[in-house]
Amino acid sequence: MHRDLPPSLLECLRNTTPGTDEVIHLNNAGASLMPRVVLDTVLDHLRLEARIGAYEAAEAEHARIEKVYASVARLLNAHPDEIAVVENATRAWDMAFYALPLKRGDIVLTSTTEYAGNYISYLQLQQTRGIEIRILPNDERGQVSVSAARDMLKDPRVRLISLPLIASNGGPVQPVGAIGPMARAAGVWFLLDACQGVGHLPVDVKKIGCHMLSATSRKYLRGPRGMGFLYIEQELCRQLEPPFLDLHAARLEAPDRFRVRPDARRFENWECNVAAKLGMGSAIDHALDIGIDVIWRRILALSDSLREGLAAIAGVRVHDAGLVKSGIVSFAVEGLSAAEVQRALAAQEKRINVSTTTFRSTMLDMQQRGLTELVRASVHAYNAEHEIDTLVTSIDLLAKGKAHA
Amino acid sequence: MHRDLPPSLLECLRNTTPGTDEVIHLNNAGASLMPRVVLDTVLDHLRLEARIGAYEAAEAEHARIEKVYASVARLLNAHPDEIAVVENATRAWDMAFYALPLKRGDIVLTSTTEYAGNYISYLQLQQTRGIEIRILPNDERGQVSVSAARDMLKDPRVRLISLPLIASNGGPVQPVGAIGPMARAAGVWFLLDACQGVGHLPVDVKKIGCHMLSATSRKYLRGPRGMGFLYIEQELCRQLEPPFLDLHAARLEAPDRFRVRPDARRFENWECNVAAKLGMGSAIDHALDIGIDVIWRRILALSDSLREGLAAIAGVRVHDAGLVKSGIVSFAVEGLSAAEVQRALAAQEKRINVSTTTFRSTMLDMQQRGLTELVRASVHAYNAEHEIDTLVTSIDLLAKGKAHA
Repeated sequence: MHRDLPPSLLECLRNTTPGTDEVIHLNNAGASLMPRVVLDTVLDHLRLEARIGAYEAAEAEHARIEKVYASVARLLNAHPDEIAVVENATRAWDMAFYALPLKRGDIVLTSTTEYAGNYISYLQLQQTRGIEIRILPNDERGQVSVSAARDMLKDPRVRLISLPLIASNGGPVQPVGAIGPMARAAGVWFLLDACQGVGHLPVDVKKIGCHMLSATSRKYLRGPRGMGFLYIEQELCRQLEPPFLDLHAARLEAPDRFRVRPDARRFENWECNVAAKLGMGSAIDHALDIGIDVIWRRILALSDSLREGLAAIAGVRVHDAGLVKSGIVSFAVEGLSAAEVQRALAAQEKRINVSTTTFRSTMLDMQQRGLTELVRASVHAYNAEHEIDTLVTSIDLLAKGKAHA
Repeated sequence: MHRDLPPSLLECLRNTTPGTDEVIHLNNAGASLMPRVVLDTVLDHLRLEARIGAYEAAEAEHARIEKVYASVARLLNAHPDEIAVVENATRAWDMAFYALPLKRGDIVLTSTTEYAGNYISYLQLQQTRGIEIRILPNDERGQVSVSAARDMLKDPRVRLISLPLIASNGGPVQPVGAIGPMARAAGVWFLLDACQGVGHLPVDVKKIGCHMLSATSRKYLRGPRGMGFLYIEQELCRQLEPPFLDLHAARLEAPDRFRVRPDARRFENWECNVAAKLGMGSAIDHALDIGIDVIWRRILALSDSLREGLAAIAGVRVHDAGLVKSGIVSFAVEGLSAAEVQRALAAQEKRINVSTTTFRSTMLDMQQRGLTELVRASVHAYNAEHEIDTLVTSIDLLAKGKAHA
């Protein structure tokens, strides 16, 4: 049922992904395997820098560098002027969040699936500016309750709703398309952390209605590490002064006067890892060529199949919630720590890469569900059915104590 | 006189720098040519990421990644716990500067050679927090007047002195070793922008006495783009809460409580371009192997020779000031714009890379000296004497109108 990708396309995805020969990579929620074209784009630019000089290489590749903004914009259904390309998703998120003029008594709404990194930032502004944090409750399916959000948005002190589109573990694809219009109607800013979302499923900022969106290159987009981007709606962009400024974000007009640039690049700084930027552009183009909906359908099918296989094993429990579940499959194996499972899988004849998530990284979610850690197997479109089968078989042996943990 | 590098060492420097075959690279103040070992380090790690997964590659190279901190510390005579490795020098500087608890009426001292990017940040805090900016006057040699600094530091409202070690054009090596102890005696923080300094000349934070220092990988260190670091003295580090926090900079201890990590990595965030980080480590090790003093002596000799050659040309004026001048040679050619000179040099049979600096990037300095733009030829130890001669000859022809501008 889940074999809906033409075999030739799967073959092509695997042939163009050198890492598939060496590992069974189910850590796409950490960082995906780069396609060859992405790797080559990065390597070629680095070689050019070493040959003719790095500034000179950037000048030579100016048009391609500019095209990266168009690629990001196309991915999100945004305008290139609404895109800032920055060092990573954390800094993209920071530049937006810390730019918001939140003050004492303002309320920030978030979800139990919030990543602890972002949550620490809320706590910091709670301490330094006196903002308040409110957690949106989940509905019976374990995703943000849209009706509770509607109620909580009635409080005029709510200024921001800030959510991950897909949590880093155990989480649903949040019903952001329902939340966006409600936030807009309430005059509340909507900041979407799409770190796990881009390249994974279709993300249309117009349909979602978010004002700001942060994302990374290295996860489902399959780009290089150390690169990310921020989408910020044009009108809001002009109103927000970035928390940091430099000579790229602003210009010095006189010794006592500067002007911040009008477009989203006000959230960038001048220096950039150009090779990684081009690599991210290449990764986006590659994903768009395949088709994000093709990728998403396949991720859904593979992850459904993986959840089914795991759930059928005695002693294994899958901990994913939500109406729509993502490619991130979270589970626990009775009697084994998450790290033991990870290590045992890495030691297989063909290495299986999975990751673990701990209490500290998604505290609210785990606390509510009485969990302390999970194994995370995250599938991508280039994963093969036999890789899913191999993982299930390996976990089955581990759960039965027949393999060394 | 200036040929004090053993020919075999110069040969070795050039043989290990692939770009020297293709270009005469005198844009080391923009970004230097990477040595082969640096390029290979970056490429090898990227290939490993593509083969086995990027998180898995970082785990495999954990020890080498940690070693980067030791390399930076060795370069600066600091402790590895005082080093944060961040995306670039701008973000390194920002994380330190914006973390300082500067408030209304506090005075920041800087120099005429301040880079406009940093200066815009002062103006931003002037607007948002009401700080005051005071410019240290220059002495008769065109460098920061130490006696004026002594006087200005007497004002108890002075909280910070913030300077570039070497300006991006026309500037001297500032007498930071005299300023550091005075700042300490006055209880004033000293933030040093060593963007152009590291890998260029010996930089010893203990001798200088600065509390914080920011730097980049791509310039005189000869590392990759998109990487930099911050030094922050241990005692001050513990007192400063970074302007942005995440799950690497801090840990979540309970849903209402976080703890910022004690070391300088509180100024980092979790995500990182690991390949570039390893590349920077490799660049530092390479520079330390050659010897920073060996590099510095050769840069001094080559740049003296270049200044002499240029100054002897009718219609060319060298605009460098200071008792100790750096490898950055700034000049103007009568009748030609800086961009015209740059273009003409790039069009030579063997391309000559120089850069230009404009009024907007070093406004205070240029305003004071009645300049609007300069050509910037910046030499490094791997440059050959014949490259300096070629530049001088080319400029001579340009100045005489005998070459196409």
